[in-house]
Amino acid sequence: MGNPLDPQEFRRQAHMVVDFIADYYQDIEKYPVRSQVEPGYLPKLLPKSSPTCPEPIETILQDVKAHILPGLTHWQSPNYFAFFPASASIAGHGLAGANALPSKVLPFSGNGGGVLQGTTCEVILCTLVAARDRVLSRIGRENIGKLVVYGSDQTHCSFQKASRIVGIHQCNFRIIKTDKSTSFALSPDLLRTTISADVEAGLIPIYVCATVGTTSTTSVDPLGPICNVAQDYTMWVHVDAAYAGNTCICPEFRHFIDGVEGANSFSMNAHKWFFTTHDCCCLWVREPSALVKSLSTNPEYLRSKTTDSKQVVDYKDWQITLSRRFRALKLWLVLRSYGVEILRNLIRSHVEMAKLFEGFLATDKRFEIVVPRNFALVCFRISPSAINMLATIGENDYSANIFGSGGACCGGLELSTYEKCINDVNCKLLESINSSGHIYMTHAVVDGVFVLRFAVGATLTEEQHVFMAWEIVKEHADATLNMYKFGKL
Amino acid sequence: MGNPLDPQEFRRQAHMVVDFIADYYQDIEKYPVRSQVEPGYLPKLLPKSSPTCPEPIETILQDVKAHILPGLTHWQSPNYFAFFPASASIAGHGLAGANALPSKVLPFSGNGGGVLQGTTCEVILCTLVAARDRVLSRIGRENIGKLVVYGSDQTHCSFQKASRIVGIHQCNFRIIKTDKSTSFALSPDLLRTTISADVEAGLIPIYVCATVGTTSTTSVDPLGPICNVAQDYTMWVHVDAAYAGNTCICPEFRHFIDGVEGANSFSMNAHKWFFTTHDCCCLWVREPSALVKSLSTNPEYLRSKTTDSKQVVDYKDWQITLSRRFRALKLWLVLRSYGVEILRNLIRSHVEMAKLFEGFLATDKRFEIVVPRNFALVCFRISPSAINMLATIGENDYSANIFGSGGACCGGLELSTYEKCINDVNCKLLESINSSGHIYMTHAVVDGVFVLRFAVGATLTEEQHVFMAWEIVKEHADATLNMYKFGKL
Repeated sequence: MGNPLDPQEFRRQAHMVVDFIADYYQDIEKYPVRSQVEPGYLPKLLPKSSPTCPEPIETILQDVKAHILPGLTHWQSPNYFAFFPASASIAGHGLAGANALPSKVLPFSGNGGGVLQGTTCEVILCTLVAARDRVLSRIGRENIGKLVVYGSDQTHCSFQKASRIVGIHQCNFRIIKTDKSTSFALSPDLLRTTISADVEAGLIPIYVCATVGTTSTTSVDPLGPICNVAQDYTMWVHVDAAYAGNTCICPEFRHFIDGVEGANSFSMNAHKWFFTTHDCCCLWVREPSALVKSLSTNPEYLRSKTTDSKQVVDYKDWQITLSRRFRALKLWLVLRSYGVEILRNLIRSHVEMAKLFEGFLATDKRFEIVVPRNFALVCFRISPSAINMLATIGENDYSANIFGSGGACCGGLELSTYEKCINDVNCKLLESINSSGHIYMTHAVVDGVFVLRFAVGATLTEEQHVFMAWEIVKEHADATLNMYKFGKL
Repeated sequence: MGNPLDPQEFRRQAHMVVDFIADYYQDIEKYPVRSQVEPGYLPKLLPKSSPTCPEPIETILQDVKAHILPGLTHWQSPNYFAFFPASASIAGHGLAGANALPSKVLPFSGNGGGVLQGTTCEVILCTLVAARDRVLSRIGRENIGKLVVYGSDQTHCSFQKASRIVGIHQCNFRIIKTDKSTSFALSPDLLRTTISADVEAGLIPIYVCATVGTTSTTSVDPLGPICNVAQDYTMWVHVDAAYAGNTCICPEFRHFIDGVEGANSFSMNAHKWFFTTHDCCCLWVREPSALVKSLSTNPEYLRSKTTDSKQVVDYKDWQITLSRRFRALKLWLVLRSYGVEILRNLIRSHVEMAKLFEGFLATDKRFEIVVPRNFALVCFRISPSAINMLATIGENDYSANIFGSGGACCGGLELSTYEKCINDVNCKLLESINSSGHIYMTHAVVDGVFVLRFAVGATLTEEQHVFMAWEIVKEHADATLNMYKFGKL
């Protein structure tokens, strides 16, 4: 066998893999969207140890098709409406330049800068370390136990993880409650009251994580007022716009980040809605020097004329890892291959398709929209009144908690039997839809309410898929309500 | 323009990109190995803003070739002998299963487990958080200021970064000095003395990072004795075998990790020497539950029947980031495409080529091997006696520090003018070699001695490249010593 990087053999095998992937995309609608396998199915199909001798690429690709594809959830399927999109594109498969996005999007002028990292988890961790050290270097490291950080009950879980990693006491991790009155956005007034009480108690507020487009419902925290509060306490504001930040290239969505000029850092995931394959998180920071102070290293074996000259930006000092993949290349390929106008129109078309689905829901009184739609996510459920009616006229009684899984869907709140019942019906509906394999959606629980999330954004999704999705949702709602009616859920 | 993920257009463009990459590998020896451009060359060549309209793939690839390729350092070049290899392969480009490596390599039985992450920086951070929380949950979080971590002056810089991130006071970050007497391996006796003094002073030792194959010289810390010391203080031992761990698949190298059964975690980078493209770091941990306790999150929007069933391992709780790329696929493709025996022989052939180069050096009295070779890295320099002779007979005088850059190469130690002079000659030699573009090596400074590192491991490297490298080293040594002799360096 030849060299493992032999150019001709590379050419032969890579062309074969390209056809394999192209065939996969061509056939993608034939697969059940959500993985239908049982946990642990794969080890049974694999040999116990690594092969001693080489196997040909043809055999390996056959195994990928036979054993691995059935285990996948097909995130690029046009019938994928779960979580948030992970919108890939041809250019995004590419094989540069941080700051690739129009700098006009963000008003961080002067010494501000941008860097591409992997995921939001990493950028929150990096900015939080910078914010922590900025304060501790002034007041002394022994005060780490006094530092407090703030988010809402809608903030992404990576914020809590990052705060644990950097040593924030978990009793100083403030989760400010949101509710329907603000569409689950963080209230600046509540934020101020909470901070003020902490300061009164001798604690030191350092960081607030605001979100533009929360995970559960794409709510938008009001950046301007939040930054104003934070400024009064010299806190760091990070804006997590992982999903919705991608829409900022469209002028009509720009207002959602109004006030960002008061923030210290801002991030968005190009791998969510910018047609770039995973992973690619864009971080902008007002003062990169704060990151560098916390994260720089300068070992002899990495020194060179160039690094010593300070003519280059050493991005290793802006992030956790030393080595970096060339993520900028795929983002640059996306920008060049499609151009800004097409990217805008792609995002707009996804929003339009979400509106289309929203319109369908409005024609059917059994459903309700739970939270107003901001982007391309529709949060809905079978309405309490539809369930109520059946409970009254049917042979069922919602006062009995007929579903063992009731507690599983309440998000930890104390719910009445009635509320649990409504959640359970919706939970069963979602499971019924997803088990069919035709489409895939996920759920969230906000303020005790179980909602189905219809997230449009897979690159291959077209109007026809939304029409079909609506038919499937109706069909499974019929079946679920019918079973409920006859006490068979 | 069609859908950005149109299968036929994907096929067309991806085939084009495959040919582009195959051509690149075919021509790779035509490029200067180390990037020859000036910092900042690229922005001048790029348009000021993103294009409004799409550009064809052909134009974009032309720009990659014209503007980006000249800026690259060609890590896959057969003439690349710098840092450590980043050995790619055809299968490693693959587009599985953690624990893919033979489990017999590591004796972590029972509840132990493995996970693929990105880089060593991440795995050190994760294990350090676990070690910290394991202790703090017992003694109270207010004692974070008393925690102490240990490494040697040869430990990778990511250990220091990780310790800062998790809130270890930098005055509690212990760097134990190594020297030539142990070939720059960490002395277990010195470790014990240091820990003992810290405990005496009321501090709490929690973590030691041992290295198998250090970055500067591939030294090997004695794992058995180090684990014994750590055990006496109930400390966590992490074994960073980023580079050398890859050799463990060869029985004759297995002894370098003898004693690993006493460690709590072990990591190696498959992207260094396992023919897998960046990034792919394999981490094994004895007690994954320690990681999970520190890093788990359980938000409602991620819950599912499967996660609730506990039938699956949620790797997000073993790492920093929530989302994961499918790294296991490329590693699995490597194992299957080449089989263990070929992988062993590839590693052996690299070691043989390093021995070949070592043999060349032994035939030329101007050079000396500074540290004994363990794997495929040769650390050498022009010997003091060769320089001394010229200083005596030539028109030069080493007693004058003729090179302004003297301080730059001393690794922060106080060096005599004589020592600085020898370092400077070697520093100039390396720069002269690398500027030629024919081969690329890097340097390290150990115990004040500047060494040239000849690291064999690029997948395309064959014996002929080592022969050529030796000719180039001799030629530039001739020139450098000649310039030194006539005071023209």
